[in-house]
Amino acid sequence: MPWDSTFEVAFHPRSVAIVGVSRGPARREPPFGGLTTLCNLQHYGFEGRIYPVNPEAEQICGLKAYPNLKAVPEPLDLVIVAVPAATVPSVLEDCIAAGARNIHVMTSAFSETRFDKGKHLEARIREIAIRGGLRLIGPNCMGLQVPNAKMVTFNDIPLKHGPVAFISQSGGHVHAYLLLGPAHGFGFSKLISYGNGLVMDSPDFLEYLAQDPDTRIICLYLEGVRDGARLARLVKEINQTKPVIVWKAGLTGAGAQAALSHTGSIGGTREVWDAFFKQTGAIRVNSIEEMATMAMTLLYLQPPRGQRVALLGVGGGNSVASGDTCAEAGLEAPALAPESRSKLLGFISIVNQSVTNPLDIPLIASKPKHLQRVLEIVAADPNVDTIIINQLLGVASRERSPSMTEGAEVACRFIEESPYQKPILVATAGASISPQLQQRLLSAGIPVYSSLSGACRALYCLLRHKRFLEEQA
Amino acid sequence: MPWDSTFEVAFHPRSVAIVGVSRGPARREPPFGGLTTLCNLQHYGFEGRIYPVNPEAEQICGLKAYPNLKAVPEPLDLVIVAVPAATVPSVLEDCIAAGARNIHVMTSAFSETRFDKGKHLEARIREIAIRGGLRLIGPNCMGLQVPNAKMVTFNDIPLKHGPVAFISQSGGHVHAYLLLGPAHGFGFSKLISYGNGLVMDSPDFLEYLAQDPDTRIICLYLEGVRDGARLARLVKEINQTKPVIVWKAGLTGAGAQAALSHTGSIGGTREVWDAFFKQTGAIRVNSIEEMATMAMTLLYLQPPRGQRVALLGVGGGNSVASGDTCAEAGLEAPALAPESRSKLLGFISIVNQSVTNPLDIPLIASKPKHLQRVLEIVAADPNVDTIIINQLLGVASRERSPSMTEGAEVACRFIEESPYQKPILVATAGASISPQLQQRLLSAGIPVYSSLSGACRALYCLLRHKRFLEEQA
Repeated sequence: MPWDSTFEVAFHPRSVAIVGVSRGPARREPPFGGLTTLCNLQHYGFEGRIYPVNPEAEQICGLKAYPNLKAVPEPLDLVIVAVPAATVPSVLEDCIAAGARNIHVMTSAFSETRFDKGKHLEARIREIAIRGGLRLIGPNCMGLQVPNAKMVTFNDIPLKHGPVAFISQSGGHVHAYLLLGPAHGFGFSKLISYGNGLVMDSPDFLEYLAQDPDTRIICLYLEGVRDGARLARLVKEINQTKPVIVWKAGLTGAGAQAALSHTGSIGGTREVWDAFFKQTGAIRVNSIEEMATMAMTLLYLQPPRGQRVALLGVGGGNSVASGDTCAEAGLEAPALAPESRSKLLGFISIVNQSVTNPLDIPLIASKPKHLQRVLEIVAADPNVDTIIINQLLGVASRERSPSMTEGAEVACRFIEESPYQKPILVATAGASISPQLQQRLLSAGIPVYSSLSGACRALYCLLRHKRFLEEQA
Repeated sequence: MPWDSTFEVAFHPRSVAIVGVSRGPARREPPFGGLTTLCNLQHYGFEGRIYPVNPEAEQICGLKAYPNLKAVPEPLDLVIVAVPAATVPSVLEDCIAAGARNIHVMTSAFSETRFDKGKHLEARIREIAIRGGLRLIGPNCMGLQVPNAKMVTFNDIPLKHGPVAFISQSGGHVHAYLLLGPAHGFGFSKLISYGNGLVMDSPDFLEYLAQDPDTRIICLYLEGVRDGARLARLVKEINQTKPVIVWKAGLTGAGAQAALSHTGSIGGTREVWDAFFKQTGAIRVNSIEEMATMAMTLLYLQPPRGQRVALLGVGGGNSVASGDTCAEAGLEAPALAPESRSKLLGFISIVNQSVTNPLDIPLIASKPKHLQRVLEIVAADPNVDTIIINQLLGVASRERSPSMTEGAEVACRFIEESPYQKPILVATAGASISPQLQQRLLSAGIPVYSSLSGACRALYCLLRHKRFLEEQA
């Protein structure tokens, strides 16, 4: 995997040309396109030089406009192409002539239309790109998003730098992930929306990110891939140093049809992809929300020794459901050791409560000291590897005394001072938690989940990934 | 199934005694117990006569207190027992002596503690109840909630009358359902929290509700059942006139342990319950939220002819995911007929959109007339039985023109005037929808779901139930 500095510059370009920038006004533009991209780069404070290309304009957004790429007075680290589909081939010829190599083709209406016209045009641009040695990203995509470099093609998103990278055939999912990351306590090194993957495909981006010092976790949204064997080889290798999270969509009849219409991708069968996940140890998710939950878990949760969970919860019916949820995720909720049980019975009434695992202990939620004693007893139990606090903090908040904050503070101090190295997860069952409180919990190594099933599934995947690393070692 | 008027009165009692009412103050009480129940009955405007029983009080909450049940001056339609566990046997003897037959034992700390003491006490109260012919509900439960009769044992809940009944071993789930019902556009005939099911068990309540003219849909939360064959026989029979929705929890190791500690229930194996659902045609759900979603669907959605769905959505990546979601729920999203496709291409650009099913049509969301034309074309398509509008209304709202309200109004008028009898479902992907708008959609027969997977699963279950009815006919 050679580190290619001529590709690296695409993510921190000193010079960008945007070909196909209308004169505006910008508010009439769709949420993607040349002018919107130009406005966004300016709005977010991109520091490189921007060259709008439009043969009919003198100036756009205060910048001198150029009639074509060859007229631009310096070498271009990145060219963003946003002209109509039929014009793309000639713009690519201009790129070759101007010596530009990193090309993002935003334009759509190629093979994903499923009409012959689009397919032929796509074949032509592939031929040009390969002949000219162009690193073509797309077509039909939103290209590169790099918070650190203020490189943005989307409107109205938070720009948070951090250790997570995302390679995605869907620009919509990149947009959603830009919002979900900060809500889960993490930011991004690079996000790559690459659409039809005509020339540069997921393995190419993986090779790059494997070497990128800013990237610690790699997320991948795939509809299809041209060289599956290469992808599998790379994912297996990279997964040993940087966890790789993969959402493979379009595995059903209807999903596959939609993939064909979205990025022209042919997706492969479920059996092929089951084997891919088995071989590579990639962490499998099935939605963008689950991907964010998993990245948060890998970043913040210390992997426990094993899969035995103590569930602290509220309500008898809920404790039955939580036991089921835990077991269905592949975890165990074993009986506590007899000495733990008798210690708990020393201060917990079993009228309307239970100290069997899952524990049903609503009345202690309003007593921070009791919560602390429960954590101490359960963490010391030899049958327990991990503790999940399910809904208890939310209930404490409803009952007002103490607030959710106090309960969370007990859990944070406990994990910071505890000798047991048994991690804690918090599930809120949809109760809202303030960003400050979430940050406090995360910095203590306690991730927060909106559902118990999400927490259990993330924990299970973390344990599988830990075993994968042990087997490879 | 004889209609028993002496049980019927328990749901509309003219006279209720509450045994075990402390003198207060009420704000120091736990959220359940005798005094809280008394306060709730008064607060909600219960119209029957209430007799607090406490040998040490003259008056409680403005009502004359009685030293024991025999001192109460009239026959009792219902007795609520909230004394400590050890005192329950003698109170039951008093019930027999006073001629009361409908008894709700709220008290817990019986077999669900898993200690011998509780088990013996429970065996004793069972013996007394059977000898005295008591219809004992409980122990360890919240008893009867009847909005129409202002019969309530919970604090702080909405009381909405309606056609849905709920029989539940968990009081917590009854509480949750009281909140979820109105949020899903329905109210309740009766809700029965029956805890350990020691004497009166789920089949007894089912027999009653089968005859209850106020009840059209019966929901059931089970941890275990004493006579499984009787339950199956009843569910199969009742399900032919009143749909029966069942959540059977505690089917995993950890869930079953929790069930034993919650209601002392022994739950049976997954195989046994799989067979139960197959035989009875009961609608299976796995959470209280799913139960509410299913009840809403049965109440509002006209069952379509078959399982072929047209998905109208937003975003290429989302369209792939929605195709997968639909297929995984057991539905089909077939290709549209060629004539539909060419009609759609007459006014929908395929640049960044797609008219393949699932349709990806973000740009039409801001044009109500276009949405209406899409609905007309898709509803006329011979390959389509049902239409799901996924996220489009939410997007319209974000883009402001037209508001979510206008898009919803288009859908409502279309379904009200359309000759095709092809139902519409709306999935919002978590976007909030006002109660007014939801009510408008529901009254047009368009249920609203917070997720596409919820919508697909509910539609699939509705179709299965329809087939069950056809097979039985």
